[in-house]
Amino acid sequence: MMLSSGVTPSRDDQHEKSGEGRADFRGQVLHGPGCWDPSRRGRVAPFMVMEVLRAANERQAAGGDVLHLEIGQPSTSAPRGVVAAAHAALDREAIGYTDAMGLPALRDGIARWYRDRYGVSVPAERIAVTTGSSCAFLLSFLAAFSPGDRVALAAPGYPAYRNILTSLDLVPVEIPAGPETRFQPTVEHLQALDRPVRGLIVASPSNPAGTMLAPAELKRLSDWCVENGVRLISDELYHGIDFGSVPPATALSFGDRALVINSFSKYFSMTGWRLGWMIVPPELLRAVECLAQSLFISPPALSQFAAIAAFDCTEELDGHVARYRRNRDRLIEELHGAGWTRLAPADGSFYLYADVSHLTDDSQILCRRLLAETGVAITPGVDFDRERGHRYVRLSFAGSEADVVEAGRRIRAWTP
Amino acid sequence: MMLSSGVTPSRDDQHEKSGEGRADFRGQVLHGPGCWDPSRRGRVAPFMVMEVLRAANERQAAGGDVLHLEIGQPSTSAPRGVVAAAHAALDREAIGYTDAMGLPALRDGIARWYRDRYGVSVPAERIAVTTGSSCAFLLSFLAAFSPGDRVALAAPGYPAYRNILTSLDLVPVEIPAGPETRFQPTVEHLQALDRPVRGLIVASPSNPAGTMLAPAELKRLSDWCVENGVRLISDELYHGIDFGSVPPATALSFGDRALVINSFSKYFSMTGWRLGWMIVPPELLRAVECLAQSLFISPPALSQFAAIAAFDCTEELDGHVARYRRNRDRLIEELHGAGWTRLAPADGSFYLYADVSHLTDDSQILCRRLLAETGVAITPGVDFDRERGHRYVRLSFAGSEADVVEAGRRIRAWTP
Repeated sequence: MMLSSGVTPSRDDQHEKSGEGRADFRGQVLHGPGCWDPSRRGRVAPFMVMEVLRAANERQAAGGDVLHLEIGQPSTSAPRGVVAAAHAALDREAIGYTDAMGLPALRDGIARWYRDRYGVSVPAERIAVTTGSSCAFLLSFLAAFSPGDRVALAAPGYPAYRNILTSLDLVPVEIPAGPETRFQPTVEHLQALDRPVRGLIVASPSNPAGTMLAPAELKRLSDWCVENGVRLISDELYHGIDFGSVPPATALSFGDRALVINSFSKYFSMTGWRLGWMIVPPELLRAVECLAQSLFISPPALSQFAAIAAFDCTEELDGHVARYRRNRDRLIEELHGAGWTRLAPADGSFYLYADVSHLTDDSQILCRRLLAETGVAITPGVDFDRERGHRYVRLSFAGSEADVVEAGRRIRAWTP
Repeated sequence: MMLSSGVTPSRDDQHEKSGEGRADFRGQVLHGPGCWDPSRRGRVAPFMVMEVLRAANERQAAGGDVLHLEIGQPSTSAPRGVVAAAHAALDREAIGYTDAMGLPALRDGIARWYRDRYGVSVPAERIAVTTGSSCAFLLSFLAAFSPGDRVALAAPGYPAYRNILTSLDLVPVEIPAGPETRFQPTVEHLQALDRPVRGLIVASPSNPAGTMLAPAELKRLSDWCVENGVRLISDELYHGIDFGSVPPATALSFGDRALVINSFSKYFSMTGWRLGWMIVPPELLRAVECLAQSLFISPPALSQFAAIAAFDCTEELDGHVARYRRNRDRLIEELHGAGWTRLAPADGSFYLYADVSHLTDDSQILCRRLLAETGVAITPGVDFDRERGHRYVRLSFAGSEADVVEAGRRIRAWTP
């Protein structure tokens, strides 16, 4: 499932100002109208993709067929070795709490992964296993930023960033990143901000655009952050799913000030296991550990035992990546045939981000009609970019080859 | 593992005030000394029990024996039916994301549990499955309270409450609750507060005291909260583990304004599965759902599939409770023999909270010596009550009968 946001307009806390209400606590006014309302932080807007999902499910329940190109997760289950390791752990282990930072064997495995895949040496002590990358973002933001701090991030981008930041009283500063910078932020964007930021989030490969930062670009952003006292958060969730156009790079290669966040959900095909990790700068380690103890106690133990086996499953996992590549190529071909030619360069991840402004100025309506008339479910861009997203849609090619190709054919045959 | 807290004294953000530092962003000063420090919210103190755990593990690693009465989790694994359901789900399901609020079948199961156990009808729509009760507390606090809101809670109490509140810019207001009110807060305590609070957390059975609120007491607190516009958070994590002295009651019986939080960790013996739930007041449902989508996507899927079977495992689980009761009785007998007679009434949970002020004015030193001289690991009270905890210790009787009895004997034979 992939996602979006927007915080509803903040209201004043009327109950604080009301003259009505009961008195207690030695005569002070306590509550009045609005007293039981959700807090301002609780007024997070839902993701639009949920509306698509609901409509798709209703269509399916009514007997219609649906091709799910709105879904942001692999269609495959965990690799066989992981499932076998889970069976074994169920029979062997008590599945109790683990260290707040994760099982030592898993942290060691992640450290080896960086050494073998990237040639980067990172001590296991700097690795925090988390309950999905979601909790890694929460811990990062809490450990690194103070209320009111401004954090820059590209629009379009993963919408939960904005919602998590806002719910923690941080201020998302959106950088409009279009095709001219391959939907990625640049040092020039940052230099042009009219007020300082304390943090920068980058995602390579990006969701929804699928574009990657070349190593030199990531290094330049990283250096700029260090020089300007800006904490870099590097979202590397889609690492491992790339198609050769841009060499993958981790922010770890360019210093130890960045918080590097990754997950077992995407390349390792383990979404529902809720397991991610982060590489923590030495000066934030103690804060992250103490926050993790209090906020989460420990990540899911069974998932951790199982994930130790994930690093030995690359053959099966690379097979998925080969399928994503074929799906991508076939889908691009069909979309070109349909006249959808303004596509973000899909360097990695399993998304195509398409400019559909030649067809509509409201991609939500386009998505609704496409689903109703062809059974193809895709996501409107407003989830990812509230300003320009109405001109874009996101198509996921994480599904089966047959489904993705059939969806492309139906789009090609469709008259919007 | 059970836990504690204390937030380190807040420092001003020196980098904001410093005249040093580099300039960018059109000439504004950006950073100086302290620039890379953890945020104020990241300065959460560690739990003291971790020090005990570390010392106990070192002793064990050096070949010494340790009796673990410091641990806050069942020594048993999940019930057989749950393990079997997990095996089946591994073979049958893709283990992908679920609804943010949890699997419908699990929410239905929880609703049935309330009907069968408590005679309370609660619609499944009001039940949010969460990643442990930890995430239920996070979601509750975010949905119900605004930055700066004051939230009352008893001291002694579960230390993560304080840390989670503080990390979300909420203000814990500790109510000193001693033996005269069975370590529980009362309406009189609340009426005596000199400033209003927006929330109240109660825990029955309590951790660390093990005391329970009688139904009439819980109703009185609940009514007072509704009348005074105070959101009640009812921690019912240890429900199911009680010994007959006080009839168990859920805040659900007394209205729908309370957030009721429970877990599969304690009675259901599933700590490492990281699965809990909350019953949400109707007016907060949408906020909780949207926050859960953005912050956590979904709770662990495999744990959810497995937990559906938990409600059919009560025979095995009630066997654990019978053992806890025997452990409790034997441990009380030995402690009385040792002259440790000022014990909180252990109505439920698997803890004894003992006043050891006749032996020490620093229970951390006492715990350290007890471990070093007898191999019995217990938890100093400061984790639970920073003011009076130095006079108390917590002993967990969640372990095997042999271990608990042997620990009691060693304490009895020990000369402090």
